[in-house]
Amino acid sequence: MSVSETYYPSEPTAPVVKTSAIPGPESQKQTKELSTVFDTRPVYFVADYEKSNGNYIADVDGNVYLDVYAQIASIALGYNNPALIEAAKSPEMIRALVERPALGNFPGKDFKQILDNILKVAPKGQDKIWSGLSGADANELAFKAAFMHYQAKKRGYATGFSEEEEATTMLNQSPGSPELAILSFKRAFHGRLFASASATCSKPIHKIDLPSFKWPKAEYPDYKYPLEDNAEYNDAEDKRCLAIVENLLNDWHAPVAAVIIEPIQSEGGDNHGSAAFFQGLRDLTLKYGSLLIIDEVQTGVGATGTMWAHEHFNLSPAPDMVTFSKKFQSAGYFFHDPELVPNYSYRQFNTWCGDPARMIIAGAIAKEVVDKNLIANAKEVGDYLFGKLEELSKKYPTELSKLRGKGRATFIAWDASSSEARNNFLAKMKLNGVNVGGCADHSIRLRPTLTFGKKHADLLVATIDKVLSEN
Amino acid sequence: MSVSETYYPSEPTAPVVKTSAIPGPESQKQTKELSTVFDTRPVYFVADYEKSNGNYIADVDGNVYLDVYAQIASIALGYNNPALIEAAKSPEMIRALVERPALGNFPGKDFKQILDNILKVAPKGQDKIWSGLSGADANELAFKAAFMHYQAKKRGYATGFSEEEEATTMLNQSPGSPELAILSFKRAFHGRLFASASATCSKPIHKIDLPSFKWPKAEYPDYKYPLEDNAEYNDAEDKRCLAIVENLLNDWHAPVAAVIIEPIQSEGGDNHGSAAFFQGLRDLTLKYGSLLIIDEVQTGVGATGTMWAHEHFNLSPAPDMVTFSKKFQSAGYFFHDPELVPNYSYRQFNTWCGDPARMIIAGAIAKEVVDKNLIANAKEVGDYLFGKLEELSKKYPTELSKLRGKGRATFIAWDASSSEARNNFLAKMKLNGVNVGGCADHSIRLRPTLTFGKKHADLLVATIDKVLSEN
Repeated sequence: MSVSETYYPSEPTAPVVKTSAIPGPESQKQTKELSTVFDTRPVYFVADYEKSNGNYIADVDGNVYLDVYAQIASIALGYNNPALIEAAKSPEMIRALVERPALGNFPGKDFKQILDNILKVAPKGQDKIWSGLSGADANELAFKAAFMHYQAKKRGYATGFSEEEEATTMLNQSPGSPELAILSFKRAFHGRLFASASATCSKPIHKIDLPSFKWPKAEYPDYKYPLEDNAEYNDAEDKRCLAIVENLLNDWHAPVAAVIIEPIQSEGGDNHGSAAFFQGLRDLTLKYGSLLIIDEVQTGVGATGTMWAHEHFNLSPAPDMVTFSKKFQSAGYFFHDPELVPNYSYRQFNTWCGDPARMIIAGAIAKEVVDKNLIANAKEVGDYLFGKLEELSKKYPTELSKLRGKGRATFIAWDASSSEARNNFLAKMKLNGVNVGGCADHSIRLRPTLTFGKKHADLLVATIDKVLSEN
Repeated sequence: MSVSETYYPSEPTAPVVKTSAIPGPESQKQTKELSTVFDTRPVYFVADYEKSNGNYIADVDGNVYLDVYAQIASIALGYNNPALIEAAKSPEMIRALVERPALGNFPGKDFKQILDNILKVAPKGQDKIWSGLSGADANELAFKAAFMHYQAKKRGYATGFSEEEEATTMLNQSPGSPELAILSFKRAFHGRLFASASATCSKPIHKIDLPSFKWPKAEYPDYKYPLEDNAEYNDAEDKRCLAIVENLLNDWHAPVAAVIIEPIQSEGGDNHGSAAFFQGLRDLTLKYGSLLIIDEVQTGVGATGTMWAHEHFNLSPAPDMVTFSKKFQSAGYFFHDPELVPNYSYRQFNTWCGDPARMIIAGAIAKEVVDKNLIANAKEVGDYLFGKLEELSKKYPTELSKLRGKGRATFIAWDASSSEARNNFLAKMKLNGVNVGGCADHSIRLRPTLTFGKKHADLLVATIDKVLSEN
């Protein structure tokens, strides 16, 4: 019995498409009502989560889609998962919802256990956690830790602030508010608040009109595919990109406190970097005294075939911080160096210090991932799916090119011939009962749940084949 | 029957203090265990939320405190409130926890109702909402809306971006990433992420070592008390502060897209501004083309005797945005101008666009506030309490001075003679069974729940009297 059959005995066996256009009339009606109070322009359809089941999402028109987008890569196990429903009904969850604590000042007696449940699946080399609320929040909290750490190295971890630092920070001026930088990469996405948007470099729409920090952008490798036929070119590409990083670490007008990078650039087009590239980056950060932050907001929690995507690289030493969110429902960063906890309390601090309700869900997801061996499932199904897509790629070389994600479980993407062709493809897939998402300008990304099985993969491949054959 | 008796038939009738020191031995033991994975230096005690009830919080040593700090002003109704427990157990809550949606793309069919429940108590003049996750997040989302609005006024709301804007924002440079400012006030607290910390000006510890935007700080009125004896001085203080604001709006090197201000500066010391000051500010923002953002993160949800504290000022026209969080458990901003929704979709956007689980709790709190008339209760109890504290202030003029919050329900504060005296006072209050918080350098702030009654006020006043008499 497959994992999805175990969890979801009544999961649909195929999509149902009842309306001739998507969104259907009822979705359109409800969207219009919602638009009086909320920005509904990005709405694809109004969902019926009560009727969604496993890998299938239902809408209010009675359409039921196989979902390989999964709330922008945010659903780990599938809809109405029985283990998560149990966690949601637990007495500790009721307390977390009703008695939301200021966790830094008044943690509850169950808080240690809640964190331990998450830490059981911490990335290799990490044993501590700081909690946030979203991916952008997690990255900015990691930036804060990095900046405090950088200054602490300068003044000494145990040394207090100078009077000048205390006075100037109240005026937002140096040295109390120093000129320091985070180095990120072109095509990166790290969030849309002000510091995270300053590190983001995916599309103008993500950051235009926002004042920003003048932080440097290196280049992320742009490989030729298939990888096995282009080893020499791609190796040179790694070296080219690492040289740019080294120049920026050397030359940038402000010290680079940390480098932040995605193991696979996701919003930016599912761009991959090799283990050699990442180890080179680890080496450079050590050489120049910058921290290395791995942003696993989209790549984390099993979808690439390891709990955390950067574990494929076996980095030595481990990265300094690993940020998470999305599939884990909660957010924050893992770390291990005790000196990443600032020298005084109330520096890395806020009212809530995370949300225990969402942390309980994260712990429940972690338990299921381990107990049900879901990463092995994702790997097996991903390899199977990748093979089928390789065949399709030969059949449709223009509309299914640059297939990427081999050996990365179901974290698979490819390019269409243009933005228009991609958007048409996504719309036609919905009309054929498959909810799938794009990234960058003309890429398609697959982000199914960890319970996505071979039967779902077959259905997905058949639908892609049908849609592309109708071109 | 008082409100608290209705909700909490078994609420303790008095605190219980079992340990000779706080935190007690069991709290210390559990804190030590927690410290291996979490920064526990700010921990006051480890709470037992299961045993907490109404206005009383229990710890793991069996101590039970009357709580007038309430998770840094974040508990609206009291611990284990039956109406919130019901909301936490509802099928819509289970769905919100288990099927966390990307609300911008795939809102659920119950989302409109969830928002409407919150909008029922929107500030006067506001009828739309954008959702965030914390107070800092809410303020930064409001900043984003303000910056996009400012640039849209310049280029025309329906006008697209120029090629130059699109190219330069990818380099974090002007004109795509423009030099624009948010004006805030000295002693203000608006959060600790990078843009919010750039507006925050309360204490060095809140922002030191973080790179910051060079944004201007005006002065918030510093009144003499009691207000009725110092009308002339305080009126002149309003004018002095407004003149500083006008100079900054006029002269600052970057255009000021918005002014953000707390109706009562809370972390910064419970500093009040008059209705005349706030109307003057409203007039100046209109004159200079800046938006007015009222930060009601700590002041909102009834504790000042109106649902939103700025409603005391009857501002005309209404502020452009009102941010909220804390007592509402959810977060975001209210607004009314349709042009505060950016011209293109996916500009004000992120994966989750808020948390429906926390929004459901906010709606349930709003319903209780209205149905149980909790604002009237807070007002009546607050007036009663203020009268008693005025008497104590005469008895202890040094350690209970500058009493403020008259006519602002239970949102009351005063000054101790020094930081040390204040911290001693807070520690002794805990040893006498009352959990109370400080703000600024040497102030004490009361932040009880909306179900705080006269009997609780009597107990609080008696304990203050006892502690101060032992000096």
